[in-house]
Amino acid sequence: MADEESARTPPLGSGLSAVLDSVLEQARPTDGGEVAGYIPELADEDPEQLGIALASVRGAVHEAGDSDAEFTIQSVSKPFVFALALEQSGLAAITRHVGLEPSGEPFNAISLEERTGRPLNPMINAGAIVCSSLIRGDDAAAKSGVIEAGLSAFAGRTLDVDEAVLASEAATGDRNRALAHLARAAGTLASTAAVATDAYFRQCSVNVTARDLAVMAATLAAGGVNPVTRERVVSEDVARWTTAVMTSCGMYDASGEWLVRVGLPAKSGVGGGIAALQPEQFGIGTFSPRLDARGNSVRGIAMLEELSERHGLHMLEHRAAPLSPIGEISVGGDGSASAGDDVVALLRGDLTFGNAEEVLTRLQPLLESGRHLTLDFSAVTRVGEPAARIFRWAAQAMGDAADGRPRLELRDPDGVIGA
Amino acid sequence: MADEESARTPPLGSGLSAVLDSVLEQARPTDGGEVAGYIPELADEDPEQLGIALASVRGAVHEAGDSDAEFTIQSVSKPFVFALALEQSGLAAITRHVGLEPSGEPFNAISLEERTGRPLNPMINAGAIVCSSLIRGDDAAAKSGVIEAGLSAFAGRTLDVDEAVLASEAATGDRNRALAHLARAAGTLASTAAVATDAYFRQCSVNVTARDLAVMAATLAAGGVNPVTRERVVSEDVARWTTAVMTSCGMYDASGEWLVRVGLPAKSGVGGGIAALQPEQFGIGTFSPRLDARGNSVRGIAMLEELSERHGLHMLEHRAAPLSPIGEISVGGDGSASAGDDVVALLRGDLTFGNAEEVLTRLQPLLESGRHLTLDFSAVTRVGEPAARIFRWAAQAMGDAADGRPRLELRDPDGVIGA
Amino acid sequence: MADEESARTPPLGSGLSAVLDSVLEQARPTDGGEVAGYIPELADEDPEQLGIALASVRGAVHEAGDSDAEFTIQSVSKPFVFALALEQSGLAAITRHVGLEPSGEPFNAISLEERTGRPLNPMINAGAIVCSSLIRGDDAAAKSGVIEAGLSAFAGRTLDVDEAVLASEAATGDRNRALAHLARAAGTLASTAAVATDAYFRQCSVNVTARDLAVMAATLAAGGVNPVTRERVVSEDVARWTTAVMTSCGMYDASGEWLVRVGLPAKSGVGGGIAALQPEQFGIGTFSPRLDARGNSVRGIAMLEELSERHGLHMLEHRAAPLSPIGEISVGGDGSASAGDDVVALLRGDLTFGNAEEVLTRLQPLLESGRHLTLDFSAVTRVGEPAARIFRWAAQAMGDAADGRPRLELRDPDGVIGA
Amino acid sequence: MADEESARTPPLGSGLSAVLDSVLEQARPTDGGEVAGYIPELADEDPEQLGIALASVRGAVHEAGDSDAEFTIQSVSKPFVFALALEQSGLAAITRHVGLEPSGEPFNAISLEERTGRPLNPMINAGAIVCSSLIRGDDAAAKSGVIEAGLSAFAGRTLDVDEAVLASEAATGDRNRALAHLARAAGTLASTAAVATDAYFRQCSVNVTARDLAVMAATLAAGGVNPVTRERVVSEDVARWTTAVMTSCGMYDASGEWLVRVGLPAKSGVGGGIAALQPEQFGIGTFSPRLDARGNSVRGIAMLEELSERHGLHMLEHRAAPLSPIGEISVGGDGSASAGDDVVALLRGDLTFGNAEEVLTRLQPLLESGRHLTLDFSAVTRVGEPAARIFRWAAQAMGDAADGRPRLELRDPDGVIGA
Repeated sequence: MADEESARTPPLGSGLSAVLDSVLEQARPTDGGEVAGYIPELADEDPEQLGIALASVRGAVHEAGDSDAEFTIQSVSKPFVFALALEQSGLAAITRHVGLEPSGEPFNAISLEERTGRPLNPMINAGAIVCSSLIRGDDAAAKSGVIEAGLSAFAGRTLDVDEAVLASEAATGDRNRALAHLARAAGTLASTAAVATDAYFRQCSVNVTARDLAVMAATLAAGGVNPVTRERVVSEDVARWTTAVMTSCGMYDASGEWLVRVGLPAKSGVGGGIAALQPEQFGIGTFSPRLDARGNSVRGIAMLEELSERHGLHMLEHRAAPLSPIGEISVGGDGSASAGDDVVALLRGDLTFGNAEEVLTRLQPLLESGRHLTLDFSAVTRVGEPAARIFRWAAQAMGDAADGRPRLELRDPDGVIGA
Repeated sequence: MADEESARTPPLGSGLSAVLDSVLEQARPTDGGEVAGYIPELADEDPEQLGIALASVRGAVHEAGDSDAEFTIQSVSKPFVFALALEQSGLAAITRHVGLEPSGEPFNAISLEERTGRPLNPMINAGAIVCSSLIRGDDAAAKSGVIEAGLSAFAGRTLDVDEAVLASEAATGDRNRALAHLARAAGTLASTAAVATDAYFRQCSVNVTARDLAVMAATLAAGGVNPVTRERVVSEDVARWTTAVMTSCGMYDASGEWLVRVGLPAKSGVGGGIAALQPEQFGIGTFSPRLDARGNSVRGIAMLEELSERHGLHMLEHRAAPLSPIGEISVGGDGSASAGDDVVALLRGDLTFGNAEEVLTRLQPLLESGRHLTLDFSAVTRVGEPAARIFRWAAQAMGDAADGRPRLELRDPDGVIGA
Repeated sequence: MADEESARTPPLGSGLSAVLDSVLEQARPTDGGEVAGYIPELADEDPEQLGIALASVRGAVHEAGDSDAEFTIQSVSKPFVFALALEQSGLAAITRHVGLEPSGEPFNAISLEERTGRPLNPMINAGAIVCSSLIRGDDAAAKSGVIEAGLSAFAGRTLDVDEAVLASEAATGDRNRALAHLARAAGTLASTAAVATDAYFRQCSVNVTARDLAVMAATLAAGGVNPVTRERVVSEDVARWTTAVMTSCGMYDASGEWLVRVGLPAKSGVGGGIAALQPEQFGIGTFSPRLDARGNSVRGIAMLEELSERHGLHMLEHRAAPLSPIGEISVGGDGSASAGDDVVALLRGDLTFGNAEEVLTRLQPLLESGRHLTLDFSAVTRVGEPAARIFRWAAQAMGDAADGRPRLELRDPDGVIGA
Repeated sequence: MADEESARTPPLGSGLSAVLDSVLEQARPTDGGEVAGYIPELADEDPEQLGIALASVRGAVHEAGDSDAEFTIQSVSKPFVFALALEQSGLAAITRHVGLEPSGEPFNAISLEERTGRPLNPMINAGAIVCSSLIRGDDAAAKSGVIEAGLSAFAGRTLDVDEAVLASEAATGDRNRALAHLARAAGTLASTAAVATDAYFRQCSVNVTARDLAVMAATLAAGGVNPVTRERVVSEDVARWTTAVMTSCGMYDASGEWLVRVGLPAKSGVGGGIAALQPEQFGIGTFSPRLDARGNSVRGIAMLEELSERHGLHMLEHRAAPLSPIGEISVGGDGSASAGDDVVALLRGDLTFGNAEEVLTRLQPLLESGRHLTLDFSAVTRVGEPAARIFRWAAQAMGDAADGRPRLELRDPDGVIGA
């Protein structure tokens, strides 16, 4: 009877899985595109594979289709290795070697910044190779060890290398070797060209699944903590910087249009994978081997566009203005109508720098009436530090009333307001 | 006595004003930079003027310094006229004339997209002139009328033109005339070159204040509704598209670094103004005439950097993970311990596509136990439509229990969940 | 009978005309190419017109086909107006406004030299417009007067303007107006943009024939003197500088290949004309309206290639080494065998810096034997000034012999050796 | 006494040597410039070395200063290895791999032609490396053997390699290795990148003297035959193609200005050498190690400019129009005044396609008078094949007169008119 019941009833959490299923099936008939041909080993992929996964910053993972099929990560590795380099050396050190600007150029562009010799950003091959060279390690093997450990931490499982693809990359990598030599000549490569390309080819040959990419992207969305393993992989700053570069440069010379139309910072690879994220909310991984002329997975793009357009997941989507952060206001104290009556204002939802001022401005008349004001944060789900600072400043600045009690008190049972 | 009291007590809402004051005073000693010299009329500005204003999406405006000093809007007009063109003709029509890609080039770059002849984006001069040409109107005067009305609606007051600066612009505008002729020759200008540049020079000569720029930017942050006048100026889609283009292209060839370091979509003008915003939260306007080599206000940049860095206002700032959206869970009904007991889950805060799944997944066991589940949205401040859709789907999909009552009910006193 | 005789006998000088006829008929079936469409007025030309003319530096003109059909000169005017500007202001003044470098770019390229704002060379439109602006005259009419008089002097007849084409140019000239404004903004245009383009459009609309172009080019080949009218139009320096720029830049981004394969400095126009020359020998004009993708006359190119390849007219063609410049050597004097016998060496042909040394070196033993040496220049057709200087130096340096007579005398009945 | 005499008398052929001495001493005080620093081994050169040599196409060599000091040939090798590749494979085959266009770019430019992947020309490093890869040989050693033998043939003596410089080049050659990998990736390199750069570095490290460079350049000027050894090194076509490319591309992004101002096709190297030539006349080699910002020898440039400007050696220098090619005309036969009298016209000097027509046109009336005409070529020093063809055609076309004798005869004792 219970079995019968559950058979009849879809699991409640399956709303999101149903969305993914629907998006995937809608993309399935999309034809066009070709499996990457330039690396012979990639040309053997089954072109019809199709998978998607979504990982929330709270650790739930939803999947549809071939979300567990393995493929090589290729350029999707770039933002994550950039993040590892940032974590290791900091923004100032890394940006001495690679810029942060969208280039208006394709992935294999050879131009370096005129004055500095830096590749324009870490998402183009030249910049990615420089990032690989910056990873700690005296030789390619040492660097590769650090990179593979880092990518595994992002994914939450031990990733390994597809040796056949690696051999194929190394045999056909003249352009990437050229980029390495150019960067070396310009003084921005941190190793010999050979060490950098060996590490880079190996990083591109790491096997992942769409699920892995979802978790990796969700780690950036969650501010650097893998939401499944709870391991901190990189700092919040690093996650933000990396997300920012994905936002402006992740889709090469189509990054601007992608931000307008889709609004999910993303990075694609010629292995057929794409990693995308909505900051603070979720990561998405997609897999489908057929590529468009720019080297992006045709059906991966289609699924992400559909998610954004139909489901409103654009990072700049304007959500209806929230209700006021001020809920119920109750007048308490001993019930007498004296000027000294206590007033309690129940705050709610998400308090930001942008609405903290509303709370204080609107409650100003109450305080000027001479009453004691208590701000109750128990229904507040989050207070950004900038807003918290304003509340703490106000409580202190108001000082004590004539009766010696503070004019403004903060009631914060969950500790959201900080110290 | 009351006077004495209020003299002693800072206004509660002044937390934010104190922040602005502090940021402004910190920037005041910053020297370097020159008042724009290329338009003679601009060279007469008092170089020491300094102002800032912040307008929240709920309509509060905070100001410091010379926030009411007038200056010409110059290139800060670009995103707003782009928005007006989008509002009038839609994204598809406009992008036949101008691209959306960061160019890696300075503001006065002359390159057009090879295949299409489009300027690379609407933030460089060529693209802005094309946008001006796209505004409705048979001649420059008609177009200028539409543009000035539109900018005034963004600012919430009637703006007028500085005729002396206009004459100066027109007399020295050879490069801009060149850009117009180039776009005309490429087939992407929607008027003659003369009409387009006349309208463009006039739009650049509109007088604004830092406060105006704050309100204009806040209108984009609020999804197209002027938060002070409550007038809808452009649609949510237009506000989002415009913000996206400011994000990737607003700071010309430093846009990528700006997004990494500051993270407030912004647009500067050689008149000394900058408009910036944090989507869904606030707009900021700054004014200080001395410019760096790239034509950005030196102290305007300094104030925005300070706000972002010290006060954590980066649009990709990771705020501490919020408390769970599920607050108190109460078991009700008649108090009997029967399997059919009603359970009420109090949801709270901001419900998104990203955490809707958490609510449903975590409550699944309750429902499988056979109980009636009510989700109480009364402490929820906002539900994004994608999340709302998932809740509505779930309520319908669960169907009725054996007793004929729905297995899942949504209690929504404020109507946040929609229909 | 005399008539019969002459009918049977081809005119002797017709060898060259027969070459032109043959080259023209060989090119006639060449199809491909389109009449210029971008100026409506040009599109009406009869596409099958075909003419060629060759003018020698000694003033003979040979023609074949439609060598007297008129068409507008268009870009073929560029080297001649550049020459007029050079003649007027000198190389140093002109090169402050326009460079001398091949650009590797097409005719309508918009790039200006980074540091100086100069168009890269006077053969691309931007550089040509700058040259027009440099021509003396307060307004466009004055400049046009100077230009038309100058072009007429090059052609040896009064040329006039095709007003219909001029109107058409002016109506569709957005790109050229853009180039003028860009140069103006960069500070390299010597008039307003409107004055420069008015003069430029008018110069492009001057009517010429293939015969005119041949004479114009021959004027450059002859060192600046029109070989038909004997009028000096520009100085030798100007003719050389202009020929040099035609050599490196005349065929836009195919100039290098043209120099390798054809080796006749040339300039083409979208009116269907081409002017070419072999320095010191002749000028050629061709006319055929159908153009290739680069805007060059398809059959004009074919005729010039044929002339160069089959008839060895490449300017760098290696001609068989000439006979020695030293002809007969006679021992004279009174016939006695004394050491003081006079020796007369008959020099012949063209004496250059490169073979003057041979003369002196080979005759050194004669002089060392103590004889008087006389160099007889009567069979010499030309002595370059550098060579003449060497001979004059030698005569002076040798001084007198013991008998008081000069050791070395120069006999120069035609005055080829100069003073 | 004889000694005294000769001490007093400068050798006659020393006119040219005196010119070289004077030019060299004038350049000696020129300071500025630095010895090439990018290859450590080059930095040790004595910066004050200064030499020049001139070799005529008839084999005389004149020298001044340190004309026998050895230095590495570096980029001066480029035109000669290009010539060797052309000689081996022909123009069509070579231009599938490398273009012929001036690039407007510096020597180490990395741009390849968009459609074809070809380096723009063989004078920039990328194109030179491609040329090295095209030289016959299965490995770098084999290619180097061919290259060194070829360079030695151009110089007329066995050249060897400076192994210390070679090691230095190889250790610092990242940019060149990058260019090789880029060309390999583009499909235009004919070997692996490593083979091409090994051969290229070795070719750059060949030791030469200024005298060697003069002879090498003179070999091109003489149409491919070494004027000292009389060995044909490359064909006339190859010599012409190579000279043409030196003319348009030899001085990198200053080639156009060089052609205008100096007019001696040239190629410089960072070893301090320059090879230049005047086609059909002479080659020049200079040596001075200090380089300007573009990598050209400062004093080498100064000497070539002086030679061209003061001594009129510009290849486009207009020499005064020669005397008419028709010398004395004598009426012979039996002295009777009958119409059948023989006329003999003595032709003289250098007969070209451009003046052959003059001869025939001017003599036409004589022939029409019914007389027999004999053209006497005994005072002619050279007849270009195009002109010879015209004379032969005329003789045949005129046919026989009534008396059965040819109307036009050619008297050609030295055989200059060919068959």
